[in-house]
Amino acid sequence: MNKVVASIITIGDELLIGQVIDTNSAWMAQELNKYGIWVARRVAVGDVWDDIWLALDEESRRSSIILITGGLGPTADDITKPLLNKYFGGKMIIDEKALDNVKWIFERVLKRPMIDRNLRQAEVPDSCTVIPNKRGTAPGMWFEREGRIFVSMPGVPHEMKGMMTDDILPTLRERFQLPYIAHRTLLTAGIGESFLAEHIKTFEEALPASIKLAYLPNYGMVRLRLTIRGGDPNDTATAETLLQQRFDTLKGLVAEWMVTDEDISLQEAIGRLLKTHGKTLGTAESCTGGYIAHLITSIPGSSIYYKGSIVSYANEVKMHSLGVSAGTIAAHGAVSEETVREMIHGALTGLDTDYAIATSGIMGPDGGTPDKPVGTVWIAVGNRQNILAQKFSFRFDRLRNIELTATNALNLLRKFIVSPAQ
Amino acid sequence: MNKVVASIITIGDELLIGQVIDTNSAWMAQELNKYGIWVARRVAVGDVWDDIWLALDEESRRSSIILITGGLGPTADDITKPLLNKYFGGKMIIDEKALDNVKWIFERVLKRPMIDRNLRQAEVPDSCTVIPNKRGTAPGMWFEREGRIFVSMPGVPHEMKGMMTDDILPTLRERFQLPYIAHRTLLTAGIGESFLAEHIKTFEEALPASIKLAYLPNYGMVRLRLTIRGGDPNDTATAETLLQQRFDTLKGLVAEWMVTDEDISLQEAIGRLLKTHGKTLGTAESCTGGYIAHLITSIPGSSIYYKGSIVSYANEVKMHSLGVSAGTIAAHGAVSEETVREMIHGALTGLDTDYAIATSGIMGPDGGTPDKPVGTVWIAVGNRQNILAQKFSFRFDRLRNIELTATNALNLLRKFIVSPAQ
Repeated sequence: MNKVVASIITIGDELLIGQVIDTNSAWMAQELNKYGIWVARRVAVGDVWDDIWLALDEESRRSSIILITGGLGPTADDITKPLLNKYFGGKMIIDEKALDNVKWIFERVLKRPMIDRNLRQAEVPDSCTVIPNKRGTAPGMWFEREGRIFVSMPGVPHEMKGMMTDDILPTLRERFQLPYIAHRTLLTAGIGESFLAEHIKTFEEALPASIKLAYLPNYGMVRLRLTIRGGDPNDTATAETLLQQRFDTLKGLVAEWMVTDEDISLQEAIGRLLKTHGKTLGTAESCTGGYIAHLITSIPGSSIYYKGSIVSYANEVKMHSLGVSAGTIAAHGAVSEETVREMIHGALTGLDTDYAIATSGIMGPDGGTPDKPVGTVWIAVGNRQNILAQKFSFRFDRLRNIELTATNALNLLRKFIVSPAQ
Repeated sequence: MNKVVASIITIGDELLIGQVIDTNSAWMAQELNKYGIWVARRVAVGDVWDDIWLALDEESRRSSIILITGGLGPTADDITKPLLNKYFGGKMIIDEKALDNVKWIFERVLKRPMIDRNLRQAEVPDSCTVIPNKRGTAPGMWFEREGRIFVSMPGVPHEMKGMMTDDILPTLRERFQLPYIAHRTLLTAGIGESFLAEHIKTFEEALPASIKLAYLPNYGMVRLRLTIRGGDPNDTATAETLLQQRFDTLKGLVAEWMVTDEDISLQEAIGRLLKTHGKTLGTAESCTGGYIAHLITSIPGSSIYYKGSIVSYANEVKMHSLGVSAGTIAAHGAVSEETVREMIHGALTGLDTDYAIATSGIMGPDGGTPDKPVGTVWIAVGNRQNILAQKFSFRFDRLRNIELTATNALNLLRKFIVSPAQ
């Protein structure tokens, strides 16, 4: 069975002047991977006729599937659609269903009158099969030529995702004989990538050719992913067993640092822990400024275990809403073990929860002192019986310091829940 | 003067399996653009010898500058550095300064013993000029061939950014005769991209060839950017005057929707407004779960005007920490005008601020009812004299609903500060 290879082409000057970060490609690659389609290249080009044309030529030389996003918005420079029309031959026509969809969106959803520019969204080359867009006005277009499949989609993430999920992925799955592929992922925290690699070197070297190990470092954590590819598609059980055996070995090797053995985030892992134990959580955030609350509440259903946060950016709020004493702040400063411990008490009482997290630190770029330079952070986690406080020193920019503080605070809580007396 | 064109090549399987979102390219493109270097293509390839080699060949055919990130970490598959060594000819040597840097980082910063894998980070092809990495162990490499410049950098964002800022950008600026380039950016909210385009169509069509207008939609807002390029580098004043005139005209045309006439975020614009007026802000967040607080506290110096947030995810916290009455919640529900109005009172009093923002809504995927479907949100903004409440209906996924609520809440506050009696 041949490896099915895809390329992603993203079109739009906004990607090349750096005003937009391309999150579409990563999502598309993840979804394609799940089905065993390998993304070999991702290319971003501007709204330039020759550049788009060349990208289509180049990518169709190496890939069977060419997925294109962007260049279809109402203010796009009217290049992508005419170009696709010329590239695949044919003429532009109005697609009646796409037109009905545009009209429906304006009448029912946006409740605004339409302008000509909006109606033109329903124009497509007659050489394509139209892919309905249930979430926006620009339809998708499916072209085929010389055994290659080309799909053009809008660049708006939720429109593209809807089209991929509803139409494109199921159709690709039917069209190609895809190899069997499976993944197992675990998340570690508290060990650097190079040390982890050294620690599991023998394991990695002994892996069979069909299994690959990937290191995916992210904010002080490292995700490890085992992927099995190929094998007999009529006997997936053998491959599954082999993968699971290796995964179990790996779990044993990294048990000390393992956060979760599922492909979920740290905040999801904590949510599951809290639900399992029937416990609630509240946070008292100074330097993280609500970011921990945001991470936790990004997870659907978090209201079952998460009650809220007192974001005490100002010292008065630490005193008034969390009951930190003025004397503690005067004697030890807001960034101190004493303060975060009192913040835990305030959160447990004020939010009436079983567990609490507290953070206080200097995120930069200003505010550092010789005693407490930028990056100095105190984190505490606790329940009504016990509080654990730890000092950290980060050395990055403001946003990364905030992210690292949040990650470390969540991981400290996770360890505390699993084994509260340390 | 020729246009100086660059390509960005990102190396790493993690980009092609979608586990990492590429934020480096957008940042690099922005910085290069400021200096008048145009990024024509961005290509992502995996840790595959032939793919990297081909990308170098292809991009050097069209660009004078090829910037490469990734493929240099301690667990990378040892492909990129040997490949660059072969591509440019030469042999691998230990760079003494890079070696000292690796040793220094392990002894002083990480305070851990080194392993052989770490020492190998100091190996470089002798055909390159080494670019010091002040923030990590992998040095950068500068190669030149047939008038093309190739720069290889680590993929870790803050390491790459440090190298670009300290060394690469200043050197490129010296080496190339760069065209004069200048931008003016404004941010609008409350008008769709297509309507904005229609509204300023005549203005756009009358722009001289040297000035380009870009539409950059983002979370219910649209950024408009005017860019002037070229002109006599010895007479930049003429170009500046021309650009400013057109920008002033544009500002007049979109005054109704303009959030700021600077290239800053909405939360930065609000920070400046609050500082100018000498006022403070607090937030009471239910459905946004701390995200508004996070946006505000991402801005350095926000502690001057921002006091904190009561993230009242649970109704008890709305009652206990914000003083929302049980009767109000029972009669109207947590997602209601009455509740967000009481939350404003609670935030103004509890956090002792001049202004407050309150949000309550159903972000999905669950929790909707026929009366209040997923996406129903009440937002209020106010001070001690006046409260303004507004209902919104979003129709996206959880994260986008949170982001849109935050954006609309911040914009509502901005309008309220500028003109409180509406």
